[in-house]
Amino acid sequence: MSRSERYAAIDLGGTKVRAIVADLDGQIYGEDIRLSRASEGLAATTDTMVACLEAACVAAGVNTADIKGLGIASPGAVDAYNGVVPEAPQLPGWRDVPIVEIMSKRLGVPVWLENDANAAALGENRFGAGKGAKNMLYMTVSTGVGGGIIIDGDLYRGTRGAAGELGHMIIDYDGPPCGCGGNGCLESLISGTAIAKEGERLIDAGKAPELTKLRDAEGAVTAEMMNRAVKAGDEAVAEYADRVGMYLGVALASYVNIFNPSVIVIGGGVSQSGEMFMDQAVATMKRKAMRAPLADVTVKLGQLQDRAGTLGMIARLKAAVEDGD
Amino acid sequence: MSRSERYAAIDLGGTKVRAIVADLDGQIYGEDIRLSRASEGLAATTDTMVACLEAACVAAGVNTADIKGLGIASPGAVDAYNGVVPEAPQLPGWRDVPIVEIMSKRLGVPVWLENDANAAALGENRFGAGKGAKNMLYMTVSTGVGGGIIIDGDLYRGTRGAAGELGHMIIDYDGPPCGCGGNGCLESLISGTAIAKEGERLIDAGKAPELTKLRDAEGAVTAEMMNRAVKAGDEAVAEYADRVGMYLGVALASYVNIFNPSVIVIGGGVSQSGEMFMDQAVATMKRKAMRAPLADVTVKLGQLQDRAGTLGMIARLKAAVEDGD
Repeated sequence: MSRSERYAAIDLGGTKVRAIVADLDGQIYGEDIRLSRASEGLAATTDTMVACLEAACVAAGVNTADIKGLGIASPGAVDAYNGVVPEAPQLPGWRDVPIVEIMSKRLGVPVWLENDANAAALGENRFGAGKGAKNMLYMTVSTGVGGGIIIDGDLYRGTRGAAGELGHMIIDYDGPPCGCGGNGCLESLISGTAIAKEGERLIDAGKAPELTKLRDAEGAVTAEMMNRAVKAGDEAVAEYADRVGMYLGVALASYVNIFNPSVIVIGGGVSQSGEMFMDQAVATMKRKAMRAPLADVTVKLGQLQDRAGTLGMIARLKAAVEDGD
Repeated sequence: MSRSERYAAIDLGGTKVRAIVADLDGQIYGEDIRLSRASEGLAATTDTMVACLEAACVAAGVNTADIKGLGIASPGAVDAYNGVVPEAPQLPGWRDVPIVEIMSKRLGVPVWLENDANAAALGENRFGAGKGAKNMLYMTVSTGVGGGIIIDGDLYRGTRGAAGELGHMIIDYDGPPCGCGGNGCLESLISGTAIAKEGERLIDAGKAPELTKLRDAEGAVTAEMMNRAVKAGDEAVAEYADRVGMYLGVALASYVNIFNPSVIVIGGGVSQSGEMFMDQAVATMKRKAMRAPLADVTVKLGQLQDRAGTLGMIARLKAAVEDGD
């Protein structure tokens, strides 16, 4: 492989598509972001992916035909081994889509696929907050709560590639219903959706004057808005944020006991508003985890933000090129 | 390595010590079991281990000096990398004991060490219910709840060898205190100790006539005794057993979502009374786990019973001999 060779990665989301052109060291030469048109179905979405990639190539000053390989990070229970997206709530109409075959035919390049949270875990492990960690967990807290497991420096995928659903550990066996069909999962308690819902409830109950002002001025409640309301003095929101931190800390303690990792990286949009709950999360973890594995672990916020997935797919391509993997 | 060569393994417990002499295929030629004298401290316990091993050698018709290697399964947060037992509640007075050095000096053979639940996981993976499974979890339900994680056919130990504490996943963030210092861990809810305590409570509350008769005739309540009381018609005990099954099933669902394993093996003394709760555990797991990883998993009872640890250490020796590991 030559250092001057260019690779590409696409992070496909329900709302947005991001494409980058980079070398295998993670240096980015071009990037494009656009709406994914996921609601218009498969053909519209794959068209968008191709257009997004082409725009990133233009930005990088290369021909699409010169790209040596493409990595796709997709939501859903991705079958990474066979390059298929069986289904994903964010991609309506997708059912057993052989996206690797579709894109490699359209673009004439070899294509690799991973679940988006797994890709982001790889990204943070190779280029971000968990750089070089042998045993690392990655949790992404955004609309939902996803995860990825790095074992011995490589992605752990499990029997069919469905491993790493770190948001679907049950921390309250009697807890609220979860989108996965279970109940009391971490995701049901700390997802952006769950947090915003509680914000709305506090407004309706007349307990969050600052949050009410922000909502009235800016529209729908978000975790980021609640973070500002806490700073502005909303006590009920601060108390709730503490509870979110406690929930996350309980999960972190369990993951410390189970995996004895050296690093846990927390990424995703909601974690960027983590000021209001991260201290409580780490304090709770320290109170509840076992002494021996606790001594090994550091909890860090992700460093790559919205590029974790695409950079993770560049890391995936690098492994493929180097190991023929 | 020759097929006729003999290896040995010791499973050290707070109450009993077991030694076997076997070949690397797991064929057992001699065995001895005796009280561990753990309460008398380190010297008494190591003397017992040597005497137990020598008796197993006599039973196998070999000289202790002809043993090619010894594997020790020990309770506690074992440092497998350095051959040290930092501490273990079952081994009073043990503090940073270099058991590998001690035993290899006394016996003149190379010695390997693992945590007992990790050893049992290896045993069931090589010779038992999870034979050949690439990704397997092992849970042992006895006085406490331990575990072991097999990834890619090998033991996953984590950063310092403390990984696999599958009994210390928190399934009720508001649950009862646990021996680990946390609260609401699976162990705090389904260990043999927790189960027997609830049995005593049901007797005191006058709700378990059959269990009362058994306790009066045989002494302290055990899970095994409660299993018989359920069969004899104690409804309150049956209801409680259902709750134990629900707790275990919640943990199984989470482990399915996290690891996407092909097999989960449940071993340990209490699991041998699992009739009263295993159906409920599997039903709960099926109700709460995610669809994709659920399709891959089989839950099995352990096959090796009290020999899982020693046979696991034979598997460990085999890996050491074959890979120079």
